[in-house]
Amino acid sequence: MAKDMTLYWGSGSPPCWRVMIALEEKNLQGYNSKLLSFEKGEHKSKEVMDVNCRGQLPAFKDGKIIVNESYGICLYLEDRYKSKGTKLIPDNPDEMALMHQRMFEGLTLFQKMAQSLFYTRFVPENERHASAEERNRGELREEVQRWENYMKCDYLAGKHFTMADVIVFPVIAFLFRFGLCEEKYAKLAAYYKNLKDRPSIKSTWPPSWKDSPGMDTLKSL
Amino acid sequence: MAKDMTLYWGSGSPPCWRVMIALEEKNLQGYNSKLLSFEKGEHKSKEVMDVNCRGQLPAFKDGKIIVNESYGICLYLEDRYKSKGTKLIPDNPDEMALMHQRMFEGLTLFQKMAQSLFYTRFVPENERHASAEERNRGELREEVQRWENYMKCDYLAGKHFTMADVIVFPVIAFLFRFGLCEEKYAKLAAYYKNLKDRPSIKSTWPPSWKDSPGMDTLKSL
Repeated sequence: MAKDMTLYWGSGSPPCWRVMIALEEKNLQGYNSKLLSFEKGEHKSKEVMDVNCRGQLPAFKDGKIIVNESYGICLYLEDRYKSKGTKLIPDNPDEMALMHQRMFEGLTLFQKMAQSLFYTRFVPENERHASAEERNRGELREEVQRWENYMKCDYLAGKHFTMADVIVFPVIAFLFRFGLCEEKYAKLAAYYKNLKDRPSIKSTWPPSWKDSPGMDTLKSL
Repeated sequence: MAKDMTLYWGSGSPPCWRVMIALEEKNLQGYNSKLLSFEKGEHKSKEVMDVNCRGQLPAFKDGKIIVNESYGICLYLEDRYKSKGTKLIPDNPDEMALMHQRMFEGLTLFQKMAQSLFYTRFVPENERHASAEERNRGELREEVQRWENYMKCDYLAGKHFTMADVIVFPVIAFLFRFGLCEEKYAKLAAYYKNLKDRPSIKSTWPPSWKDSPGMDTLKSL
């Protein structure tokens, strides 16, 4: 089954990573794993553009079926392979509701993170303002604090690992990779450390992170 | 069942509207509908903040269960009330895949739209640049053209109405409300006109749109 699947991905990208975690959790190992380099522009190659006309990673094929957008791929895998591997959408209505909410609040966390960390990548030089950079950093701080306050259980939506963790864990890992303070955000750090060794996460850890040190951009956040 | 549900919403907001369409499609009429005014800041009232600490609409309660984020609410309703009303996630794998992809590409369409239409709302005066406004408009044009090219069938994911339509139709309606050219984007216009009279959409049409003319901001897009 998984041998007919192909995933195009880039190392360290939270959207790519979450799909790899979902594939592991659904026991869909053995897919064709195509690691591409953003730096070399390989995500704009014809091979990728044929699958994803946006030239974005992840791009995914399941046999002849194409599905892109990281949230879309994760939910497709759960809907299509419901009975395989980990059940990622809980039946319990409370957990189901919280899972859906956290999953989509994850979009805001990612957006605030990208907006602050990649300001100079997204904004042309002549349009940059110190006031905007400061505001973005303030918004990221507020958002991260919100998630710190959310942490009451072992997982994002309660006592069980769910799709919310598949989706949001890579973003939280990214924050720590960029130096987020483990003492100030102690609950998020505990969550991060707890999940780091989960097989689906350990086996998909970004290869580019293994041999290089992290950054300290968010040390004082 | 629905009488124990409460939806806080604002008129004309695509995120609010999609939840109302989902409720109709799932035959969950009769919920407590609380129409609030963004202009009066009612989305920051204690009543809303108690349900959604972000002070954002839509905010939603199903009995004692709280679930926010418009995509989250829509998927929660489908997962929880699977057997009621319209089946919004197709079983056919091709349609299922396309539905998931279009649903999440809808985030990009919405983001490009908001970034262009509400530039002055989001960017403080001293940080505004004509070059940014122009780029935003160009990106919106490219995105809308992409969706125009996508339209091959009656619905966004094929021959049937799915969650992709629930989620994205309000964004497309918003574009036409702001003057998008029906001749230039003929397939999107046909889709818009075809769905306008669907009961779930007609009965939830933004009340603030009924008695006031649209804008022509996007006329030349």
